[in-house]
Order: sequence, then C-alpha cells, then structure tokens
Amino acid sequence: MFKIRRAALAVALCFAGVATGSSAQSFSDADLAVAAKLREAGQSSNLAYELVDSLVTEVGARPAGSENDKKAVDWAVAKLKSLGFPVVRAEAVPLKAWRRGEAHAHITAPFAQPLVMTALGGSVAAPKEGINAEVAYYPDFAALKADTSDKARGRIVFVDQKTERFKDGRGYGPSSTARTQGPAEAGKRGALAFAIRSVGTDHDRLAHTGATRYAEGVPAIPAFAVSVPDADTIARLQRYGKPVKMHLAMQNELGIDAVSHNVIAEIPGTDLADEIITIGGHLDSWDLGQGAIDDGAGVAITAAAAKLILDTGVKPRRTIRVVMFANEENGLDGGRAYSETYKHQKHQLVAESDFGAGNIYRFQTRVRPEALGVAMVIAEQLKPLGVEAGNNEARTGADTGTIQRVANLPILSFSQDGTDYFDYHHTANDTLDKIDPAKLRQNVAVWATAVWLSSQSPVAFHPLPPVEKKPAQ
Amino acid sequence: MFKIRRAALAVALCFAGVATGSSAQSFSDADLAVAAKLREAGQSSNLAYELVDSLVTEVGARPAGSENDKKAVDWAVAKLKSLGFPVVRAEAVPLKAWRRGEAHAHITAPFAQPLVMTALGGSVAAPKEGINAEVAYYPDFAALKADTSDKARGRIVFVDQKTERFKDGRGYGPSSTARTQGPAEAGKRGALAFAIRSVGTDHDRLAHTGATRYAEGVPAIPAFAVSVPDADTIARLQRYGKPVKMHLAMQNELGIDAVSHNVIAEIPGTDLADEIITIGGHLDSWDLGQGAIDDGAGVAITAAAAKLILDTGVKPRRTIRVVMFANEENGLDGGRAYSETYKHQKHQLVAESDFGAGNIYRFQTRVRPEALGVAMVIAEQLKPLGVEAGNNEARTGADTGTIQRVANLPILSFSQDGTDYFDYHHTANDTLDKIDPAKLRQNVAVWATAVWLSSQSPVAFHPLPPVEKKPAQ
Repeated sequence: MFKIRRAALAVALCFAGVATGSSAQSFSDADLAVAAKLREAGQSSNLAYELVDSLVTEVGARPAGSENDKKAVDWAVAKLKSLGFPVVRAEAVPLKAWRRGEAHAHITAPFAQPLVMTALGGSVAAPKEGINAEVAYYPDFAALKADTSDKARGRIVFVDQKTERFKDGRGYGPSSTARTQGPAEAGKRGALAFAIRSVGTDHDRLAHTGATRYAEGVPAIPAFAVSVPDADTIARLQRYGKPVKMHLAMQNELGIDAVSHNVIAEIPGTDLADEIITIGGHLDSWDLGQGAIDDGAGVAITAAAAKLILDTGVKPRRTIRVVMFANEENGLDGGRAYSETYKHQKHQLVAESDFGAGNIYRFQTRVRPEALGVAMVIAEQLKPLGVEAGNNEARTGADTGTIQRVANLPILSFSQDGTDYFDYHHTANDTLDKIDPAKLRQNVAVWATAVWLSSQSPVAFHPLPPVEKKPAQ
Repeated sequence: MFKIRRAALAVALCFAGVATGSSAQSFSDADLAVAAKLREAGQSSNLAYELVDSLVTEVGARPAGSENDKKAVDWAVAKLKSLGFPVVRAEAVPLKAWRRGEAHAHITAPFAQPLVMTALGGSVAAPKEGINAEVAYYPDFAALKADTSDKARGRIVFVDQKTERFKDGRGYGPSSTARTQGPAEAGKRGALAFAIRSVGTDHDRLAHTGATRYAEGVPAIPAFAVSVPDADTIARLQRYGKPVKMHLAMQNELGIDAVSHNVIAEIPGTDLADEIITIGGHLDSWDLGQGAIDDGAGVAITAAAAKLILDTGVKPRRTIRVVMFANEENGLDGGRAYSETYKHQKHQLVAESDFGAGNIYRFQTRVRPEALGVAMVIAEQLKPLGVEAGNNEARTGADTGTIQRVANLPILSFSQDGTDYFDYHHTANDTLDKIDPAKLRQNVAVWATAVWLSSQSPVAFHPLPPVEKKPAQ
C-alpha cells in the first residue's frame, strides 16, 4: 500500500530558511567522515538488490497469513542473522487472513467480452451460482457518491475512476479512495457487486488488487478491479445505448485465523541506546506478483543501509532498529502490533521505505525546531546523491504511521520518484525486472548516510510539539 | 504473425539512382490532384480507427474457426457493404482449427514459483495427469540445436532465447524461429515438453502465444511460452545449482474441422479492370487479446484507404481489391485459398498491412524495371507524409506471400515503425488502447495515395523478371 501524503497546509519551515550558523560543527569530524564513507559504500553496494532478488526468487509472493508468508519470515530471520546483526527476533502478529479464490467475470451483452479482473483484498465471495446483472456505469467515484437515484439497485456498479501519473504518486489518492470506499457506497445503494477500473497508470491487461473495506450496517458485496484496457472496453460499450450485462463468479475466504511476524534486527546504541531509530518496510506482499517493488525493495534498502552502518565497525550512539512489518497490505496488523509493543519507547525517529525502487529525489523531516539545524546538515550530506531538501512537514508511511500518530514521533522521509510505480503496483507485474540496481544503490546510500547521522546527532529530534487537534468538519 | 523480411542481399535499385526524366508527366494532372486530395483526406479521416474500434468492441478476439471468427466474418461483410463498396463477398476457407484448453505450469523445486504461461498455437495437449519433470535449460535456441548430449531426454526443455527491439522488428526473426522449430528440436532429443521465453520485447507478466510446428517422425510434445519476467525467474533458479523442477498441465484440441472466410471488397476498374491491386490484412486474431494491432489495424487501414478512393467518385483504371484474410495466425489458410483462386489473374501488385499501427516511415517496391520511374513518383507523393523511399527489393507479408511467390507478383511495401510492436504482439495486451488514432490516419493517407496512383499508373508493374532459383545449400 502507499499512504496518501497530502501537501502540508501549514507554512513549511523550509530548511533553506533556517540559519545554519555552527550546525556543521554539531557533528564530529569522525561522524561526518563515516557519513562520507557510507555515501560511497552505498553507491557501490549491491546488497539491497541481492536481498530483494533472494526474497522474490526463494519465496516470491507472500500474502499475510499464507504459507509463503511463513517462508518469508523464516527467510528474513535467517538473512538478518547471516548479515551479522547482533539482535534478530521475530515478534508474533496475530491476524485475520484473507484468501483469494477463483474469480471470473465477463460481459454478456450487448457483445460478449472477457474481462481481466481480480478480487479486491478483503472482498467477500459471490453467491455460488454467480451474479448475472446489468452494469450501472459511473464515470468516477464522485458520480457514484452523488447518485440519489435507484440506478445501482440490483446491478453491478462499475466506477470508471482514472488514476493520474505523477512523480510523487499523488494520483493514487482519489482512486484508492474509490477502491476502499466504493463497495460500501455501492452496497448502500442496493448494488449486487462493485467493480472499479484498476487503480493504475498503466495500459496493461493486468488488474490491480488492493485492500477494500465495508461499512457497518451496509451489505458487504463482492468487489473487484478490471484491467485498464478492460475498463476501456466497458466504457466503449456504453456508447451503444443498450444494457451492458455482466456475469461474475468469485470465491474468497475471509477471517482465517493466522499468525505472522514482525521481523526485527537491531544495532544497539551506546550512550543513547534507549533512543530508537525505527526504519523498515513491509515483508508481506500481495499475492499476484512477486512483491519486488512492493515492498521487497523497501525491506532490502533499509536492511542494507543498516548493514553498511554495522560494517563500518563504529557503534552508533542511538539504537538502529530495522523492522520488516507483517501484513501491511491487507490489515496493517504489523504496524499496529509494533505500536502496541514500542509506543512507550523513546524514538529519535521513524522512517519507512514503501514506494518502490525509484531514485530518492527529496529529503524531508518532522523534527522539533531545535533539531532543524542538524536536519539541514543531514540534507547537505545527501546533496551529492542528487537529493534536494524539502520541508519539516514530513509524513510517514502506513507501517510506522500507527506508532507515529500514537506517540507523536519524529519522522524522516525520503521521497522516491514514483512516476512508474503505479504501472506495476499490486499486479502480477510486480517482479524483480522492474528494479534498477543502480537506483537501489542510490537509495541505500541515502538511507545509510541519513540514518547514521541521525544516530549521532547531538540534538534529539524529539519531542515534537503537541499536535493541534483539528476541529471536526 | 509477422513474416521475417531479410535485408535484400542483391544490389538494391535505389530510387535515388534512377533518372526521373519525364516520369512526373506519366500521371495526369487530374490523377495527381486526386492523390493530393487523398493525402489530405486520409490525414483527417478517423475511419480506420472507427473500424478497428467497432471490430474489437463488437467482436473482440477471433481465432480461426471459432464462433467469434464467424462473427468477425459477418461483421466484415456488413461493414464493407455499409461503406458502399460495389462488390462485397465472402469466400469459404476450410481449415483445421486449434482450440486452446486449460493450461497451467509452475516451478516445484528448488523453490515453488507460479509461472505465467500460454500454450503455443497448434500445441498438442499434455497427458491428462500432467507432466512433472526437471527443466533442461538452454540459454538460446542455438544451444539446443548444438546439444548432442542426453540432457533433454525425459525433461522439459526451456529455451531462454531473448528478443531484441528494433524499429523494423528484425529481432523477431531468430526468436520466432526458436518458437516454431523448438518443439521439434526438443522432441528429437527425447524431451517431454518444450517451453520458451516469450517472443516479446516487453517486461510484462503476459505470455506471448504464436504458431509452432512439429516435424515428421518426431514426437509431438506440448509447447508453451512463459512471460519474460517468469523466464527471468527460471534463469535465476539456475544459479542455485540444484535441479529445477516443473509441473505442466495443458489441454488443447487439434484438427477441428471448420470453415472461415476471406472477406473481399472491390472497386472495379475501368479500362484496366482485369489488372488487380490486392491489398489487405488478416481478419482472424489470436485468442488472448482483442486483435487490435494484429491485425485489426491492418484490415482497417486498407479498407479505409479503399473507401477514401471510393469516396473521390473517380473510378480507378485498375480493380482495387481489399481482402480480409482468414486464419493467418495459425495456418495461413486464407492466403493459400486466395492464391488458389486468384493466381491466374493479372496483378498490378499485392500489398499487406500486418505490422501494427505505427507510423509508416518507408515505402518500397518490387516492380519491373520499366515501372521504377512511376514508383519514384509515388514515393515523391508520400514524402509530405514523412515517408522515405527505400529500394525495389520489397518483400510482402504472410497472407499475400503465397500468391506472390506462386505467381511472382509485384509488391508495394509500407514499413511501419514497429519499435513497440513486439511488446504487445500475440498477448492479452493487444487491445485498442495500443493504437494511436493519429498514426492510423497517417497510414491511411499513405495507403490511399499509393494505391490510387498504382491504379492509375500508365505503366504496368508486372511482369517481374523471373526469380533466380538459388542453388540448394
């Protein structure tokens, strides 16, 4: 998953606007020398690529609660141990798993057309005999929400919401909202099923899955996505002015009791060992692809960055903790369990890599004002890697989001170029070949440099000023 | 299908090397005025796009001998009549159809991995219980052909032949040869099945089908292609130095008696009505996609070009015949039937559109030397459309290839930019969205202009000098 990050509305405290003064002296020459070494080491290390290659080749897809999820946990524990991390552990995360069954849909009128489709994560099954119904077409989600007529009743709702391509991925926001909230909106209006144009920027005949939700008191109806070219076909069929009819068959299992694990590796700190730097990505993936860009890349980048720090032989002041989270995709159980366990620990920062394998182009923070000078020095150290400084309004991802909100923790954020990310995201196309090893090296160099300096900072990034509660609207 | 066109080895009679002299006067001013009008009309006509849209939306995939193939023939007859062609007919083409059944393959060792795969056209079924065997890996087809060992015996041969991307599509030659001849080479060596890296330039999780062949006296074994990312996975599994094992299940039906049709529309000529200009593409498609670029585009371009000529109201001297050929993909029955019926007719030329929907960048001919001046004028008329002149060594496509060889007929050839063609070719991704309407308009303008001028030529393009028989090597 990729959490929507809205542009900060508050006036951003741009790094450029903060006086540097003697900030550069805040790090020792030795610490800066190690940072420079890490920057170089990252750029010449293939470790992250080797890690994601190993994960997707030896395990592959690993939906939460599946046999492959177990294999992935075993893989992660063994791999982190073999990398020499002094502390490696797996922490149980109980969860309710969802298992995809057979699914099929096709258009029966006005012209027969097959449909490439996939159930949305968490979708209920269709009745055994399938569903035969007319399609109620909505050009976008707003049109469905605005509909006060009886059009959807007894029909299969189809929402033709398109996803726009942006470097920062912001096109995902409106269309993923349509995916998660659509079934409830359709169910409310008496629809038999909910279908959506795949939430993707590609034109491939591959459907994009992703989690969906139902609402209390609203009938839970089968929910699926059709590939972009198939959505085009459905749109073209509207032109004929005749009823468009569809057959749907779908079998899924819900609420399966399962246990997964957050897998954790630590480099214990020295004088500030009780201040935690939590970095990571999620170990689980959707079932359709190999989970290479989502999020093999993220766990590999963050683990490789920590390993480079470990290999310097210089012990960090603060504790660096790499977390491979359980079930990000279809429940966020790993992030919630992590928050429950660690919300009372002091955190220097949380930072998450879960937006593919593109180059990092921007560094942002959310630190207390007293730490902005240090943040600027870190930003300076990332410039040679092609990373620009952003603002101090960073948001974090889905996994560290829970603990961050609960405990109001500082954040580092590394914006990756996600121009192509939603071409492959949540599809069978999420495979190793979509990763450029050179870009992965750039990511590792950035992370290793920034995490190291954060661990050595003479200034704590915490506590953040209390969050102002916005009045309910 | 896309026929391999080798670069002419003989010295090409470049247009540029021919004295123009009074060639320009060879066409009447009226004919040249009509050509100019057609060039403009083509560039502003959406007819070709409307035709392919109609075909793929109302019929879709139309493998030879299927119910949808019948629908496509009905569609073609009705559409050509509605366009006002004075002669429209469907000519029966008996054929042996092949019907794809369920197919599935996955890796069982050293790590379980699903495989996205598709049976090759014409493949036999696997035994009902499926095949479980070790994979015999060959980096390319040459390695398989060179293998004199027992490595393939009792195994599933996998040929990891890659397809290179070129504007003119020449990368297809070596890899399609591997696809067509591979099963026989593997069967000869005692293999249980044959698998190949998809013959495609993409990195999509979609397998490319395409016709294959068996050889006399060699066991016919199941043959299939895996998607490019899955081929990558198989290649990576080699590294572990352990046996790679695969399970294969595949059900197909062969030799089904069926009848399809070549659908023909004509604009009868006037004083040279017995000289035929045969243009067209193929109406059938593979079953996986919508048959938009292969070859909805080709039938649409050539039919639209003829319709523009019809709409000028000026009757052509020679007869213009648009042919929508039957079963190009999996047997070439339409082309053979056409040759049988029309090989004794005098032909001004044959020309075929079967390489997608990219812009035309080059015009080539194969005409008798006396007609080269006229060919040069035609080339001049195409220059404003961005088309360069090539040589007089043109080859034609698969459908008109039979009659061309049998009767040694003149050829016009319009080279399309095929840079992306093999990304989508023979996959589920061959859908309408892969066609740019503007490029289709450029194609129509080129075809209409060149066909019109060929019909008015004061010089016959035929007869060609006899073909020199190459000594057997």
